[in-house]
Amino acid sequence: MNSQNKLKIINDPIYGFITIPSSIIFELIEHRFFQRLRRISQMGMSYLVYPGAHHTRFQHAIGAMHLMQKAVQTLVFKGVKISAEESEALYIAILLHDIGHGPFSHAMEHSIVEGIDHESISLLFMSELNKEFNNRLTLAIQIFSDNYHRNFFYQLISGQLDMDRLDYLKRDSFYTGVSEGSINSERLISMLNVVEDKLVVEEKGIYSVEKFIIARRLMYWQVYLHKTSLVAEQLLTRLLKRAKYLVTNGVVINASKHLSFFLNCSITKKSINSEILNEFANLDDNDIISAMKSWQYEDDFVLSNISKMLLNRELLKIEIQIEAFDREYISESKQKLMARYSITDEEASYFVFIGQITNQAYSMKKETIDLFTKQEKTIDVANASDHFNLKALSKKVVKNYMCYPKTNN
Amino acid sequence: MNSQNKLKIINDPIYGFITIPSSIIFELIEHRFFQRLRRISQMGMSYLVYPGAHHTRFQHAIGAMHLMQKAVQTLVFKGVKISAEESEALYIAILLHDIGHGPFSHAMEHSIVEGIDHESISLLFMSELNKEFNNRLTLAIQIFSDNYHRNFFYQLISGQLDMDRLDYLKRDSFYTGVSEGSINSERLISMLNVVEDKLVVEEKGIYSVEKFIIARRLMYWQVYLHKTSLVAEQLLTRLLKRAKYLVTNGVVINASKHLSFFLNCSITKKSINSEILNEFANLDDNDIISAMKSWQYEDDFVLSNISKMLLNRELLKIEIQIEAFDREYISESKQKLMARYSITDEEASYFVFIGQITNQAYSMKKETIDLFTKQEKTIDVANASDHFNLKALSKKVVKNYMCYPKTNN
Amino acid sequence: MNSQNKLKIINDPIYGFITIPSSIIFELIEHRFFQRLRRISQMGMSYLVYPGAHHTRFQHAIGAMHLMQKAVQTLVFKGVKISAEESEALYIAILLHDIGHGPFSHAMEHSIVEGIDHESISLLFMSELNKEFNNRLTLAIQIFSDNYHRNFFYQLISGQLDMDRLDYLKRDSFYTGVSEGSINSERLISMLNVVEDKLVVEEKGIYSVEKFIIARRLMYWQVYLHKTSLVAEQLLTRLLKRAKYLVTNGVVINASKHLSFFLNCSITKKSINSEILNEFANLDDNDIISAMKSWQYEDDFVLSNISKMLLNRELLKIEIQIEAFDREYISESKQKLMARYSITDEEASYFVFIGQITNQAYSMKKETIDLFTKQEKTIDVANASDHFNLKALSKKVVKNYMCYPKTNN
Amino acid sequence: MNSQNKLKIINDPIYGFITIPSSIIFELIEHRFFQRLRRISQMGMSYLVYPGAHHTRFQHAIGAMHLMQKAVQTLVFKGVKISAEESEALYIAILLHDIGHGPFSHAMEHSIVEGIDHESISLLFMSELNKEFNNRLTLAIQIFSDNYHRNFFYQLISGQLDMDRLDYLKRDSFYTGVSEGSINSERLISMLNVVEDKLVVEEKGIYSVEKFIIARRLMYWQVYLHKTSLVAEQLLTRLLKRAKYLVTNGVVINASKHLSFFLNCSITKKSINSEILNEFANLDDNDIISAMKSWQYEDDFVLSNISKMLLNRELLKIEIQIEAFDREYISESKQKLMARYSITDEEASYFVFIGQITNQAYSMKKETIDLFTKQEKTIDVANASDHFNLKALSKKVVKNYMCYPKTNN
Repeated sequence: MNSQNKLKIINDPIYGFITIPSSIIFELIEHRFFQRLRRISQMGMSYLVYPGAHHTRFQHAIGAMHLMQKAVQTLVFKGVKISAEESEALYIAILLHDIGHGPFSHAMEHSIVEGIDHESISLLFMSELNKEFNNRLTLAIQIFSDNYHRNFFYQLISGQLDMDRLDYLKRDSFYTGVSEGSINSERLISMLNVVEDKLVVEEKGIYSVEKFIIARRLMYWQVYLHKTSLVAEQLLTRLLKRAKYLVTNGVVINASKHLSFFLNCSITKKSINSEILNEFANLDDNDIISAMKSWQYEDDFVLSNISKMLLNRELLKIEIQIEAFDREYISESKQKLMARYSITDEEASYFVFIGQITNQAYSMKKETIDLFTKQEKTIDVANASDHFNLKALSKKVVKNYMCYPKTNN
Repeated sequence: MNSQNKLKIINDPIYGFITIPSSIIFELIEHRFFQRLRRISQMGMSYLVYPGAHHTRFQHAIGAMHLMQKAVQTLVFKGVKISAEESEALYIAILLHDIGHGPFSHAMEHSIVEGIDHESISLLFMSELNKEFNNRLTLAIQIFSDNYHRNFFYQLISGQLDMDRLDYLKRDSFYTGVSEGSINSERLISMLNVVEDKLVVEEKGIYSVEKFIIARRLMYWQVYLHKTSLVAEQLLTRLLKRAKYLVTNGVVINASKHLSFFLNCSITKKSINSEILNEFANLDDNDIISAMKSWQYEDDFVLSNISKMLLNRELLKIEIQIEAFDREYISESKQKLMARYSITDEEASYFVFIGQITNQAYSMKKETIDLFTKQEKTIDVANASDHFNLKALSKKVVKNYMCYPKTNN
Repeated sequence: MNSQNKLKIINDPIYGFITIPSSIIFELIEHRFFQRLRRISQMGMSYLVYPGAHHTRFQHAIGAMHLMQKAVQTLVFKGVKISAEESEALYIAILLHDIGHGPFSHAMEHSIVEGIDHESISLLFMSELNKEFNNRLTLAIQIFSDNYHRNFFYQLISGQLDMDRLDYLKRDSFYTGVSEGSINSERLISMLNVVEDKLVVEEKGIYSVEKFIIARRLMYWQVYLHKTSLVAEQLLTRLLKRAKYLVTNGVVINASKHLSFFLNCSITKKSINSEILNEFANLDDNDIISAMKSWQYEDDFVLSNISKMLLNRELLKIEIQIEAFDREYISESKQKLMARYSITDEEASYFVFIGQITNQAYSMKKETIDLFTKQEKTIDVANASDHFNLKALSKKVVKNYMCYPKTNN
Repeated sequence: MNSQNKLKIINDPIYGFITIPSSIIFELIEHRFFQRLRRISQMGMSYLVYPGAHHTRFQHAIGAMHLMQKAVQTLVFKGVKISAEESEALYIAILLHDIGHGPFSHAMEHSIVEGIDHESISLLFMSELNKEFNNRLTLAIQIFSDNYHRNFFYQLISGQLDMDRLDYLKRDSFYTGVSEGSINSERLISMLNVVEDKLVVEEKGIYSVEKFIIARRLMYWQVYLHKTSLVAEQLLTRLLKRAKYLVTNGVVINASKHLSFFLNCSITKKSINSEILNEFANLDDNDIISAMKSWQYEDDFVLSNISKMLLNRELLKIEIQIEAFDREYISESKQKLMARYSITDEEASYFVFIGQITNQAYSMKKETIDLFTKQEKTIDVANASDHFNLKALSKKVVKNYMCYPKTNN
């Protein structure tokens, strides 16, 4: 009751005022699980390329909830029945959809808690919160895990035009300053409707959808798969792998209580329990950065050098090309490094490595974006007349990259 | 030479593209002293109120340098003579003006390295860099320390309309989403000129200057002196003071290598040397946050509770009023807390305390903002006809605040 | 019924999408009386100074209606009771508030139909429309003419913070490109409330209100009272006066059917009837511009010269000063002109004349802007602590101007 | 000399301040030929769909000149040699590129002065001005007519990425409020360069170019070829044709002096002379609107009805489809109208008619947009890897439309 009168409005650089729709939402935001997201960078280490990109999962989650409110308003205005319980569940589901993200958003997934994606952890957090909140999150959990009978609900959470994407594309474009990647989320939402339990876009929205797809593609090439971001992300993942490797082999290295916990134990999807989740709830970007600051003085060549590289932005060089890299070229590069610093092949492979990046602007195999025509037909946007190019954009683009130290040149 | 071809342009959410004007500027930005600013929050813990406010001193410094380029272009276009050496020195001086900021921008100044302002430390860093860069920063240092014979140079670095203010007001308004605080920096710059070695604003800019002063005042009341920011900042300062107190009294508490250094030694303006500066160069926001995360488990009531408060955003209550607070009211509040948790008066005073905030939109005593009229006269903007209100705005406003735990109610 | 499916959304450069809330609003917009506003420039001939300022009364009226929807939503959300009939009446009243504007918004009022302000004509149009729409505008008319028992309704239409001002200040700032004059209308609206049947602003909105007043003042000096606009407006008024004078004296001059009607007859507030209103409904900017284009070839020195001046932007010179102009200085200037072109004193007085402009940012005598404090008191914003400057801003500023031909120099 | 001190800066809602680079540019803008552009709507009658679209050719021409300044700065910065004479000529050429536009931009071309495009008339005006300005426009005329030896100069005036397009796409998107059509002109310009006398875009600009093409396509479908705009433009053209037909057949209809001139005489490209050009220089939107206002009372069924339709926005219905319209369907519709109003087949064909619209986002046959790769190769953007979709976009899309009166339903 009292919380009713507390914070009700949040200032957002993008949407202006965001209203918190109910007291349970307010309490969830106040919860320390959610407050942790203030310390989880939305775009990992992309700020090394785009200095403005220091926004957090906290803002994104609240932004996505704001857009969900707009979507519910639009749909209800158009005659779609959504009950008060259902709308609150939608807000909760989108608010918590990323609560399982670890430090730098994706760094943990590919290193320390391998094999467990952040969605699974989000679900675990929701269950935990559901206990604390007397099962008031049950419906939200059903929607989030796609177990609710109304299909379009899940599409709003996780689909081609979900509120997650509509917020993060806009937000990431805003904070990086890559204005060409900006999308008009509110306009797209205003053209949504539901036909036969499926989310559709009104026909007149065809150009906006196309613009959305192109903007998304641009953000991938220009921002998410930016050379330097790619190097930084790879280095971060390898740093954590190295730390885990060292600890597993009995080397003592400095780390915060909670990071140590994860470096020391081996976790699988099955073995996660409340205790582990609680440890996870204490991890954030600071644990990683602080570890780097300490690790730069460690004896291990790999650990200290990657730490320095990330702290001082003295990263690896990267080449990107369509063809695979020549094995000999890679081997030579590694040899050079091994000779220079008298390190083993295994150590060198932390600094000389290859990989692939892929980008598919629009997938025609999975779920489609459907238009609803004036003739009341539902058609895939890729098949709408005059849009041949979407078929082209649905081809997956694969590129190869190779990283190696600048000093190798 | 090679650096010429490296990074030359930086994306900024506010100004779009920022060009790096020369290779020495590029190298200074790449220096680890400057890269550290990526980990220093521009607005301290204000993100607890404005979730978007995660921008850093790094961005601000580069933004201010960008505005300095605009200012130099404008002045040169209007016939003010500025040599290539002078303009580069101006860019360096503004780029480095905040390099001496510690974690959360102001937290250190009022606690651990008391008595030493960040400008002094900036100057020390500049001297250190000057050695590394073969005295190429000498002119920049002269300008920064107001020892250059052309007075308006210093005004561009530190004056009523300096590039520092013109960037941070705009930037803070942008990231907090408090759009009413926004100023039109580029427009103000376009109306600058120099008369008798003094920076002036063309007469037609009178309303823009007025708007600037009002926006600044609004930012102070609404953002910088916002209740919750104030509480957070006070708590942060007190947390560090407590840590120092404990360490001084022989209590062992967990802290990063570099934070420990400062908790353990007593530093005065005179005693600072290269070694201490090097330690300082390793401190950033992460050291503080990581310390809090560890300190929340410490035995000390004050240390653990303030840490939890800041981490989970469960802050003190604050009251603000014109009159001083009643001594008895304060005392009562403290007694209640002491009784509740069986703590000493000294410990309670970390949670129940009073203070003052002041705001003066325009000072008529110090340096003025001068208008240059069509009759070629220079007059203080406050004396320009029809602007009586500036005189009113130059009155200093003082308010009293009192903080105490929510549980006291 | 059919109209339900017609145009429902209007694109606006400022607010994005504007929704038309009901079918009667839609039909009123479609009415030829309202469509005429597409041909009435919002800012008279200000586009001679600000080339972007070609926006029309049509856009402004719809924009103000959009803001009224926001205001009603806000107030209803805060518990103010507003029935569906009342809200529709508010939308109609604000939509039609400017429907009585003649060509170039104010040119007619001060020349051809002297003594009749546009509000009176708006009311006449509303009555006319009320007949056509089966008295469905009755409540709107009551509100517009301040005859409705709920006082704050009229304040939303015509008050210190009415939707008219909140739209035109924002819109004029947008189209002129004078971004410093911009106000945050949506934010101001979000802080409105009603206390004892009076519109109030929540206390926290104090800085926003101040910003609003300053922005308004800036728009007056920099835009509405801009030297060149002033000259153009004066010339336009004098041109129409001259035309009327000539026609009254039997000179035949070319003019459109509807403009001729008004040049030929003398109209008073009392004598206006349906027929005259119908003639008025056919007048717009084109009648005036086309007349000028024709009049530039007329024999009359005054008529042809003012026409050319306005068409080719070769305006009079203007001086502005606090003191009154010296009578001799004026007389001399006139003599010079008379001698140069062998014209009479009466003719010369169309090109050499004086006048006054006044600007009062905030009037304390009339209706005030009231703040509603947390202590639930209502206070005038000018008396709120720390805002002395508003008292200063409430002083009326009066300036004198004098116009004369450039060739006089 | 005096003009130096006159107007030097123009406020633009889009770019902020626009600087007038030299006194001849200033004098050209002041010329009555150019001032006329203030009365020529940039987007014809599109304001009937987008009420904000009242911007003029005047603003567009100045905006394009502003972008040309940016382009010259960028190219010079990158080492392209452009002399002061050349850059001034570029500014003049782009400033005057649209000076030959008649009322509503395109209405005349397809009706009254058929067979003469506005570029030809622009060239005639330039020649006329060249006489007045003592041949100081000679170089500009060479560039504008593609007779200058440096090819990329013409590309800046009229090419795939010319300053004309870069301004009008941005400007039209801004004023219509169709924000998805916005392009980042300044960013595109910043990536231009010249290789072998040909304008190229740096490779990293590939996504920006793609975005530009998509935005342009969207503007065509959503704005320039918008159903209602299309109807209005067709009606306007037919109205003027009807007027000319009537006059040619001896019917006396009311029209301004200058419009009458063109209704009465038959003009071919060859027959245009100074006198005709002078008449043309007096025509603008007002002549057309005023004519309509008069013509709505004429006896001729076609003339009066189209006039009313355009004035009161009661337009024809339009259907658009890929296939051609059935002849019988068209015939039936016409018959119905003929019967209803007892009009001839010829008269009815003004209200029932068919036509085609085409849209080609990117033409691969004509001039291409070339990228300049890091390997210093020049390649067509359509052949750059991963951009198959541009090939698709280069297919021309043709659609059929049919218009008929609403009353026919």
